[in-house]
Amino acid sequence: MQQNIHFITVATPDLDAARPFYVEGLGWTPHLDVPDEILFFQVAPGLLLGLFAADKFAADAGVAASELAVSGLTLSHNVDSPAAVEEIVVRLAALGGTVTKPPQASAFGGIFHAHVRDRNGLLWEIAHNPTWQIAADGAVSL
Amino acid sequence: MQQNIHFITVATPDLDAARPFYVEGLGWTPHLDVPDEILFFQVAPGLLLGLFAADKFAADAGVAASELAVSGLTLSHNVDSPAAVEEIVVRLAALGGTVTKPPQASAFGGIFHAHVRDRNGLLWEIAHNPTWQIAADGAVSL
Repeated sequence: MQQNIHFITVATPDLDAARPFYVEGLGWTPHLDVPDEILFFQVAPGLLLGLFAADKFAADAGVAASELAVSGLTLSHNVDSPAAVEEIVVRLAALGGTVTKPPQASAFGGIFHAHVRDRNGLLWEIAHNPTWQIAADGAVSL
Repeated sequence: MQQNIHFITVATPDLDAARPFYVEGLGWTPHLDVPDEILFFQVAPGLLLGLFAADKFAADAGVAASELAVSGLTLSHNVDSPAAVEEIVVRLAALGGTVTKPPQASAFGGIFHAHVRDRNGLLWEIAHNPTWQIAADGAVSL
């Protein structure tokens, strides 16, 4: 429990509009789905991503619902090949995602990636990152 | 590599202003610190949090630097006791964090928590969540 993030929670005005990007687009299975309240996905060992109804998010965090935006943060999902990047991006775009950067080689060593905003405005990077490694203990090396 | 987030990347106009919240406030050790470019922390098995210079973030994601905001998303960090929540929140506030919700019992079962915005406007929840469990394989139960 030391240097860990345990939840990523995203203010979500319309859960039904947001859900297909994750379930059909990324192909992910919900950890828990409470309609009109919260939709959780497990996204790393010990870590849940939650799409949380925006009004409840605001009340829980003590902030105004009018000041919620998520345009300045990216969640990255690595896949096995450049072809897989292209395939997922086509699917996400068809489900209402906005492609801000079409699939292409990145400026950083060997990465092939794309960026897509979901219905919340949240940026997703879909990437093939051949030098990315996770050791048996979970330690990342770049 | 299936249902995983591998990076959380935050657009950061001023890395030097942002760093103390993490290093001194949360007490975290950087995974990699490239001044004026990017500051990484490992935050779960296989997951890095990156504070990325805002101009470089915008260029990498194909978005305008003027439209970056992170007010509608929370990163949660669980700690061992209500007293630890209070101690960390005092430290984060002293380092320029804005407390949006002072330490208190949550509406959700047994959680004691607080919310603090960092210098990027990113909300952090510091929580004591006694029912939170992570199995040996990393699976979360709520």
